[in-house]
Amino acid sequence: MSKDNAPWVRIEKVGQHAGEVVQIRGWLSRMRSSGKIGFLQLRDGSGSIQGVLAKADVGEEIFAKSKGLGQESSLIAWGKVNPDERAPGGYELHLVDVQVIQNAEGYPITPKEHGTDFLMDHRHLWLRSNRQHAILRIRAEIMKGILDWLDDHDFLRVDTPILTPSACEGTTTLFETEYFESKAYLAQSGQLYNEATAMAFGRVYTFGPTFRAEKSKTRRHLMEFWMVEPEIAFCDFEENMVFQEQMLEYVVQRVLERRARELKVLERDTSKLEQIKAPFVRLSYDDAVKLLNEKGVEFQWGGDFGGGDETIIAESFDRPVFVHRFPTAIKAFYMKPDPDRPEVVLGADLLAPEGYGEIIGGGQRVDDLALLEARIKEHNLPPEAYAWYVDLRRYGSVPHSGFGLGLERTVSWLCGLEHVRETIAFPRMLSRLYP
Amino acid sequence: MSKDNAPWVRIEKVGQHAGEVVQIRGWLSRMRSSGKIGFLQLRDGSGSIQGVLAKADVGEEIFAKSKGLGQESSLIAWGKVNPDERAPGGYELHLVDVQVIQNAEGYPITPKEHGTDFLMDHRHLWLRSNRQHAILRIRAEIMKGILDWLDDHDFLRVDTPILTPSACEGTTTLFETEYFESKAYLAQSGQLYNEATAMAFGRVYTFGPTFRAEKSKTRRHLMEFWMVEPEIAFCDFEENMVFQEQMLEYVVQRVLERRARELKVLERDTSKLEQIKAPFVRLSYDDAVKLLNEKGVEFQWGGDFGGGDETIIAESFDRPVFVHRFPTAIKAFYMKPDPDRPEVVLGADLLAPEGYGEIIGGGQRVDDLALLEARIKEHNLPPEAYAWYVDLRRYGSVPHSGFGLGLERTVSWLCGLEHVRETIAFPRMLSRLYP
Repeated sequence: MSKDNAPWVRIEKVGQHAGEVVQIRGWLSRMRSSGKIGFLQLRDGSGSIQGVLAKADVGEEIFAKSKGLGQESSLIAWGKVNPDERAPGGYELHLVDVQVIQNAEGYPITPKEHGTDFLMDHRHLWLRSNRQHAILRIRAEIMKGILDWLDDHDFLRVDTPILTPSACEGTTTLFETEYFESKAYLAQSGQLYNEATAMAFGRVYTFGPTFRAEKSKTRRHLMEFWMVEPEIAFCDFEENMVFQEQMLEYVVQRVLERRARELKVLERDTSKLEQIKAPFVRLSYDDAVKLLNEKGVEFQWGGDFGGGDETIIAESFDRPVFVHRFPTAIKAFYMKPDPDRPEVVLGADLLAPEGYGEIIGGGQRVDDLALLEARIKEHNLPPEAYAWYVDLRRYGSVPHSGFGLGLERTVSWLCGLEHVRETIAFPRMLSRLYP
Repeated sequence: MSKDNAPWVRIEKVGQHAGEVVQIRGWLSRMRSSGKIGFLQLRDGSGSIQGVLAKADVGEEIFAKSKGLGQESSLIAWGKVNPDERAPGGYELHLVDVQVIQNAEGYPITPKEHGTDFLMDHRHLWLRSNRQHAILRIRAEIMKGILDWLDDHDFLRVDTPILTPSACEGTTTLFETEYFESKAYLAQSGQLYNEATAMAFGRVYTFGPTFRAEKSKTRRHLMEFWMVEPEIAFCDFEENMVFQEQMLEYVVQRVLERRARELKVLERDTSKLEQIKAPFVRLSYDDAVKLLNEKGVEFQWGGDFGGGDETIIAESFDRPVFVHRFPTAIKAFYMKPDPDRPEVVLGADLLAPEGYGEIIGGGQRVDDLALLEARIKEHNLPPEAYAWYVDLRRYGSVPHSGFGLGLERTVSWLCGLEHVRETIAFPRMLSRLYP
């Protein structure tokens, strides 16, 4: 077996080279040896494979050098790809040579248990673990799934700005920065801009980071998180929910299909995800209040749900639940009141099952010029900052709706995580800005 | 011809309904009429079509009402799709009914010429024009093309943070914000974080907004701009250039193929883009200095190129040019010096032809621990902020390279624009934060 001309192959594709000698470039995630044989667990970012090192094959020198390698040492390994039913990936590598790039000593994250703070301080290294790999691959699949679905449904991607002069829902939870002679705020939503581009392009979306300077420390909050926000001209409140459930069904089923290996690493109960099929449940806010009261929760009509309330509502169903027609008084100024009952709005939050709570907020927007101007006044918002937004109701206003899906909460749900902090490579939390 | 049950069709797809009556939902971009016939130019965000309105068909009332509509009025129009060779899209609509949603009066952007400031102040409406449509559709195609190419080449999308505690290249051009008890800066690159994720996943990329608080007012600068930044483990300087030229060739050819209509609207000379095929030109910094001197430019070895210099270099070739091995002294601390000649780095800028200048910066990174620590010291960077970054050279360091492509400059080049301000929906410039 010669290593000359052995192709560099990524581990996830070794199956295409069964019986051949290939080159793997990566890192040593674990090493054990007994006498004249060593087992090198190799990872290269695409997957993991066991390399079997026999002193008889590689000689004394390479065997001794390899045996002494520390965790996360970088190396190039040559070996024959052997099918092996017992191996998690179906193959192992019969090694013929090893070239050490760097022998790493004292890698801080060992197979033993570490505390969360320690792992978060070493997030730049923790990302190399199997579990973090699985989560971030699922995240990437969700993102691409959303993009593909939207593109296939005639939505145009139009990026909205992060630096904005005005605030969607007041400035108390906004990060502020000097912008030359003036002040700017980091956007917590691209929605208002989406409404402008929806009037230009019909169906649009923005997908990028958003920011919320909220002093909250829960398992559902990040200061910096990603949102996809579609906005649709000539779309009412009901049609808007259909877009949401169709998109989400597609994404969940795609993740089940393409990321089965990663879901297994996470020990996710996929039977719960297989049930995620449209149509989802529609539950009015009124009925949600009744449901809470029946379950013994003291909750008054007019209030907003807390995380615990959402969990109780969501756990009453096996599919996601749209809670619709919230009280107008607790919702944003741009939400369209129900013409038949102006004390509630034509908006809905989508609650994920299994206690994951709100992952989408959406609804129909006020399209009447006079009403929008009145709402801006009622909410004490500066009219000059919203002049351009009001223009959209002056020149060719149409019924339109949209929604925002929080990426990290969706990742958390599909992966079955306890905390949203693992859903993004470098989470930003109340007391966490490093690394 | 009955309008009952006529399907709602987007204009770009009317060809699938030739001979049928369809429903178009959109806006009136232009109206002219003569006697008993009216011509309504309709747009719905997907395209534009002429609706022919005959008084004899629709009756006095609808005819009169439609004739009086202002520009950008919103409406639903029913009509029969008639093939017409003279029509830009190949079809026109023989109208049978029109329902007005809102009659818009005094739309500020008329077919006459407007100044740039006026148009930028009305950017939320200007986006409805044919030209802005063409540009933003090409932008979206470039983005999707990049994502598809990277995914097809085993790159994993891993989003890097915007809010960061440290600065990649000093803090003078960074936007700063309070982050609870500490300060944060808006990232102007995700590269350092990419290096961490590349060591975890092998091949990664980040694609999001980046920020530069630079007091410059040129046709190439925005304060907020999008970058795609791939980073590749086990990749040297030369291989890195191959990735770049292959990706860019793919994107340019895809835009030519899928956005021909839009390029025509922009009157782009596509023959120049058809030549964009790998391999691109490689020109050393030394030779670039010679070239400038031969062209009569006084330029000393050791300086950085200005926009004018880049134009002169780029115009000497019909394909993009990699200018490589810049002086180490003028480049960032993380760039790997050429082992054969440490006064230059293994980095390259890619200059687009036709005077568009730098669209990519990239290169191989310092992978030696001691050298990286020395460079951080030389550049007076705070070591504690870079502790995690240095860890990457401590635990399994490997040769690695990456690059950053500026989206807006690429859009500007492919669209053949004079100024980068039209390449993004809501540009952020020195004196422009509204709308």
